[in-house]
Amino acid sequence: VSFVEIIARKRDGGELSAEEIRTFVRGATSGTVADEQLAALLMAICIRGASAAETRALVEAMSDSGARWRLEESFPGVVDKHSTGGVGDSVSLVFAPLVLACGVPVAMMAGAGLGHTQGTLDKLAAIPGFAPARNRAEALERLQRCGAVFAAQSAEIAPADRKLYALRDVTATVPSLPLIVASIMSKKLAVGAGRLVLDVKWGSGAFRKTLDDATALAEALADVARAAGVRTSVLITDMDEPLGRQLGSASEVRSALAVLEGGGEARLRAVTLELAVEALVMSGRARDGARRGLESALADGRARAAWDRIVRAHGGDPNPERLARPRRSVAVPAPRAGYVASVDGEALGLLAVTLGAGRRQQGDVVDPAAGIDVRVTSGEHVNLGDTLVNLELGEREIDVRLATVRAVRAFRLADVAPPGRPLVAARIGDPG
Amino acid sequence: VSFVEIIARKRDGGELSAEEIRTFVRGATSGTVADEQLAALLMAICIRGASAAETRALVEAMSDSGARWRLEESFPGVVDKHSTGGVGDSVSLVFAPLVLACGVPVAMMAGAGLGHTQGTLDKLAAIPGFAPARNRAEALERLQRCGAVFAAQSAEIAPADRKLYALRDVTATVPSLPLIVASIMSKKLAVGAGRLVLDVKWGSGAFRKTLDDATALAEALADVARAAGVRTSVLITDMDEPLGRQLGSASEVRSALAVLEGGGEARLRAVTLELAVEALVMSGRARDGARRGLESALADGRARAAWDRIVRAHGGDPNPERLARPRRSVAVPAPRAGYVASVDGEALGLLAVTLGAGRRQQGDVVDPAAGIDVRVTSGEHVNLGDTLVNLELGEREIDVRLATVRAVRAFRLADVAPPGRPLVAARIGDPG
Repeated sequence: VSFVEIIARKRDGGELSAEEIRTFVRGATSGTVADEQLAALLMAICIRGASAAETRALVEAMSDSGARWRLEESFPGVVDKHSTGGVGDSVSLVFAPLVLACGVPVAMMAGAGLGHTQGTLDKLAAIPGFAPARNRAEALERLQRCGAVFAAQSAEIAPADRKLYALRDVTATVPSLPLIVASIMSKKLAVGAGRLVLDVKWGSGAFRKTLDDATALAEALADVARAAGVRTSVLITDMDEPLGRQLGSASEVRSALAVLEGGGEARLRAVTLELAVEALVMSGRARDGARRGLESALADGRARAAWDRIVRAHGGDPNPERLARPRRSVAVPAPRAGYVASVDGEALGLLAVTLGAGRRQQGDVVDPAAGIDVRVTSGEHVNLGDTLVNLELGEREIDVRLATVRAVRAFRLADVAPPGRPLVAARIGDPG
Repeated sequence: VSFVEIIARKRDGGELSAEEIRTFVRGATSGTVADEQLAALLMAICIRGASAAETRALVEAMSDSGARWRLEESFPGVVDKHSTGGVGDSVSLVFAPLVLACGVPVAMMAGAGLGHTQGTLDKLAAIPGFAPARNRAEALERLQRCGAVFAAQSAEIAPADRKLYALRDVTATVPSLPLIVASIMSKKLAVGAGRLVLDVKWGSGAFRKTLDDATALAEALADVARAAGVRTSVLITDMDEPLGRQLGSASEVRSALAVLEGGGEARLRAVTLELAVEALVMSGRARDGARRGLESALADGRARAAWDRIVRAHGGDPNPERLARPRRSVAVPAPRAGYVASVDGEALGLLAVTLGAGRRQQGDVVDPAAGIDVRVTSGEHVNLGDTLVNLELGEREIDVRLATVRAVRAFRLADVAPPGRPLVAARIGDPG
């Protein structure tokens, strides 16, 4: 079967065999299939979709394109946690030390920011000296030293995903559900933790704007994980507005520290606790006992101490005084009195990128000091002139007036308070 | 609007504006749009289709990607004739001198063979010295000298089509109706004859296997031609078996000469006459008068004389003795007695390519002597051992036993004669 025939079958809505999917992925990795052929097949998959069997085959083939770390073999019970990406989402920074403080080892593959979102890797880079693990030996070494590891996707992990993602980015095939599932799960399987907590975001600040789309993604992710023998729990959580009130690398680390010290922002703390409960329940704790254990770890300093151990094991300096501070801060006033009806997370995320907190294109340098300090969220009341956000400016020269206008437009103010939205919309999978 | 957004709109089944289609075609020609992006859009068009307006815009943009010869301006009334490709189809070689002999100038863009079909350009190359026109000046010069021109598609004609065709070939996007229409009509409009006779083939030896598919193509071609102000007539003709009994460059030139001398094969003569009638009716002749005029031109030597003038005007030697002859001929016997129920034109075409009469890949040299001499056609009766075809061997070393088996398998023999099929299934367009 020639590669053109494989493309033609998917073009006509047919199903590809596991062997044909391996041919596709091997061709992407080795360069033996031309980029234009890969692009044509990606578009055919994007329009025609993929069956559950095809998706599973794609995930396995992409995982097999690089190294498999098999962390579960060396650290039985190790938990991986992944978010589909949002704004003000520093959950990973809290989750790892919190779960570790309750006795569960953690391994996370941290990514760079994408589009309007900031990545965990960029936030960790705000910590002086912090070096994520880049291969299996480094991951095991960090796990042995402190019980947790933040790893960075390197060329040895699922290289087919890097190749295909770069193609998807320029061919309008990013939104394909099976391709998203394959991109996420190929890296999870390559790391090889035996347990997985997934945080699928939905709403204006997420990549999945509707609950239906988020649910479809959650179910597809859970299906692949189940087939691969990974115990998995998926929460679908609200990202209609930024989760935390801080956008920007250094300030999100500070937000995480505030939660780890027993205080912090209510929404960030609540979502992290829900995800951490799933991790502990997977490890055999009762649900109620898990929540109580996590709350004490936050209250009695164990979670905060675990953070310092993790940072030191990664070569970083845990002293929060060494985190970057903005050069200056510009308050953006409310143009009228009213209730905050909505906060457009994507708009604020893109504005934060403009300020320097993310990348507009590959190769851009993230400024850890830059970001946005969100002062009001949905349901709160503001008076005319009250501060909506502070623009936190770093090294980059910014058109402050334009940034102010963009910030104001991200807020919808109304005369009545909006209805509330649940933080966790659904739970999928069986952690027990 | 970024190119990714253009791809995304077509991916979702939307319609592109003429300006967006020009962006696409300009990007293909100039190289400013990446091949993987072109491939993704081609696949999206292949699956989602294109509206009549999009197809017309695509044709115009592709025509505009190179030179426009505007032959109608210099030779009012000049007729172009195009076939969608078949096997044993040397109609063009008869059509040009026959129509010219009746006073109508002819301009044809001849192509190389594709897949199982042989191209007019390859057949003309069997004539010693024959040089098709490669630019507007050469086309005008040949028209002035003899009233007809065979041109070869060169880099100056619709370069976007060359680029896109090369991509379609490897991305399984060749069968897309709007892309086929754009490929054919962009070259027709670039040549710029004011009148066009189209021969859309259907059946096992054609690219369109069903009459429905052929009709859809014929209507789409006629729609684009009408919109461009080209007077057009389309015949849908039978290609379920080879049209002529000779496959191969030199032998097809001889077949054409036999018709031009007033004899020749009945099916080849009949289809050519039907198409020539359309050309003469477009030029103002009555349909009956047109047919009588054409038949006399065949009978009284005027068509044959016109052929010699055309060949000489193109630098060729019209002496048929100088056409190549096969090195040897191998008879393939009927494996049983019976009626010929069908002859698989595609299978014989591919076998002829194997013998050297066509190209298996770009860069292959066509052997003018190689080919197949088909001895029996549908409806005829054979006895065990009667010759089905003669394999005409040229320079290439051939596995004769394998070729014999392939030839036998192209014939279906049955106990009863098959029902006849009309040579012309439909006529579309208004030549009058």
